[in-house]
Amino acid sequence: MVNPATSPHKTRVDPETRKEIRHRLLRIAGQVQGLQRMLDEDRYCVDVLIQVEAAREGLRQVGRLLLRSHLETCVTDAVRRGDGPAAYDELIAILYKFCR
Amino acid sequence: MVNPATSPHKTRVDPETRKEIRHRLLRIAGQVQGLQRMLDEDRYCVDVLIQVEAAREGLRQVGRLLLRSHLETCVTDAVRRGDGPAAYDELIAILYKFCR
Amino acid sequence: MVNPATSPHKTRVDPETRKEIRHRLLRIAGQVQGLQRMLDEDRYCVDVLIQVEAAREGLRQVGRLLLRSHLETCVTDAVRRGDGPAAYDELIAILYKFCR
Amino acid sequence: MVNPATSPHKTRVDPETRKEIRHRLLRIAGQVQGLQRMLDEDRYCVDVLIQVEAAREGLRQVGRLLLRSHLETCVTDAVRRGDGPAAYDELIAILYKFCR
Repeated sequence: MVNPATSPHKTRVDPETRKEIRHRLLRIAGQVQGLQRMLDEDRYCVDVLIQVEAAREGLRQVGRLLLRSHLETCVTDAVRRGDGPAAYDELIAILYKFCR
Repeated sequence: MVNPATSPHKTRVDPETRKEIRHRLLRIAGQVQGLQRMLDEDRYCVDVLIQVEAAREGLRQVGRLLLRSHLETCVTDAVRRGDGPAAYDELIAILYKFCR
Repeated sequence: MVNPATSPHKTRVDPETRKEIRHRLLRIAGQVQGLQRMLDEDRYCVDVLIQVEAAREGLRQVGRLLLRSHLETCVTDAVRRGDGPAAYDELIAILYKFCR
Repeated sequence: MVNPATSPHKTRVDPETRKEIRHRLLRIAGQVQGLQRMLDEDRYCVDVLIQVEAAREGLRQVGRLLLRSHLETCVTDAVRRGDGPAAYDELIAILYKFCR
């Protein structure tokens, strides 16, 4: 698997998706701050757990947007130049690492 | 299931757990900001996806700390006063809502 | 964590839950056989993937029934005799091992 | 999203993958039977829960093999004939339906 941390690849997320991701990240940042407030206010643990999951789901949707963009750009290019298998190796490694 | 949003219950997270959650939330907030930076720097999608999952995992660990505290306090009290079934209903509803 | 494989504990699943689990396991066994048939019939991969997940969801519901029974019996007894923390250690280890 | 249930598509799983999936499905079938035996033997709930997850993980690996095959065949063909977006819609719908 290509070592993403040092990968020379650049992302080519289109402007519209970029805007939506930015919007979602701002909301998630607000949710994370809200979690601290809930703790400070001694809110019921189950309430706080529900908010933890709401923030996780927000991040999952960011992941979905990124994955879609990755398929449309990097994976599509790889398939067209005959490097599909390597791109699929990386894709499956990511998906099965984070998805139970 | 008790409607957590308006639940009269108060959380009784112990100081040490509270401190650890605070520390983790600060780190997660930093990770979420970092995601925006990565996007602005056009970092490789797979890199960004890995960071999305790192932030999700951070939130999952916050959930774990909260769940443990909830078991030690609210669920234990409920079992002792004979309300175990109601507490288990709520617990399983939360666990199976967020866990695939 | 108690080594479940050699645990002296006995399960005390009530007859009704036992019956429901048996029913679900029979259905899951049928789904797993069905997957082989679909493969033999060269069914569309996405169709087969959907059936894989249906069988996984069936197993998840079996897990839910077992977890509920475990809470009602083993965990409740542990809490009443003051062994709540050990029971919670085991519970959280299981939950966070299998749940992303 | 194409309605997979009535999809005209045929799967083109290669013989080697087909063989591995068959092998795994047989093992999973054995695990599911084993779960019923464990219940009949009143084995400790946590033991049984661990086996439920082992069978789930087995199915997850079958899904991984199918997904890989799907990428290599159907998705690759779709990209080459310019139908990448439709194939990605279907792929992401499946992944995000079953993956939390």
